[in-house]
Amino acid sequence: MQMQDTPTLVERYFAIWNEQDAGKRRDLIAATWSEDADYRDPRLTSDGHEGIDAMVAQVHEHYPGYRFRLAGPVDSHNGRLRFAWQLNAPDDGPPAATGVDFAVVGEDGRLRSVTGFFDTIAGA
Amino acid sequence: MQMQDTPTLVERYFAIWNEQDAGKRRDLIAATWSEDADYRDPRLTSDGHEGIDAMVAQVHEHYPGYRFRLAGPVDSHNGRLRFAWQLNAPDDGPPAATGVDFAVVGEDGRLRSVTGFFDTIAGA
Repeated sequence: MQMQDTPTLVERYFAIWNEQDAGKRRDLIAATWSEDADYRDPRLTSDGHEGIDAMVAQVHEHYPGYRFRLAGPVDSHNGRLRFAWQLNAPDDGPPAATGVDFAVVGEDGRLRSVTGFFDTIAGA
Repeated sequence: MQMQDTPTLVERYFAIWNEQDAGKRRDLIAATWSEDADYRDPRLTSDGHEGIDAMVAQVHEHYPGYRFRLAGPVDSHNGRLRFAWQLNAPDDGPPAATGVDFAVVGEDGRLRSVTGFFDTIAGA
């Protein structure tokens, strides 16, 4: 992995979560995630490009208009990343949820594995 | 992985970092880490039982009497762990370093991969 690619990779990662257009989202996923990638958080599980795409579509159904954003610097070493995120409701009030993602980048510079952890959930 | 094993696994993980006795440390490593395990942080890299043992011995040489401690709850889902740690100097003053470890647990309940991230380093 070229280290200068890390911000772009993380930008694309968030763009995927927020992309409503199914065709654009599939292209972004193919450019950003390995074929054998996995995603795990306390509520969601997905594997591979189709699984990741279906997961994001499902989140859009449940949280229409919400947007995920990077919420701090990207900490990176040895092809492993840590970065904070927040989920903003359409009215742009306080974050509906915040957490930290941990990612493993493969030798081709794409995401091989992402694990999400939650720090705060509004109303929880 | 049995979820009730997670605290014990993390306790053993810290015990290894703090174990001065080479024989006891090797036994703890074999019980706690997979044969093909890896450890990565911004400064240290090790692979396999012998590599992990050599890494810990090297840290003891550079930081004699320092101790690693769990510094919060263990966040766990899907066999993936997140927990904060601190490194205390022998005089028990403010932590010499703090950070967060992210771990992947294998199907046999042992650590397969641990990635350390630093949050604060005294004097840095």
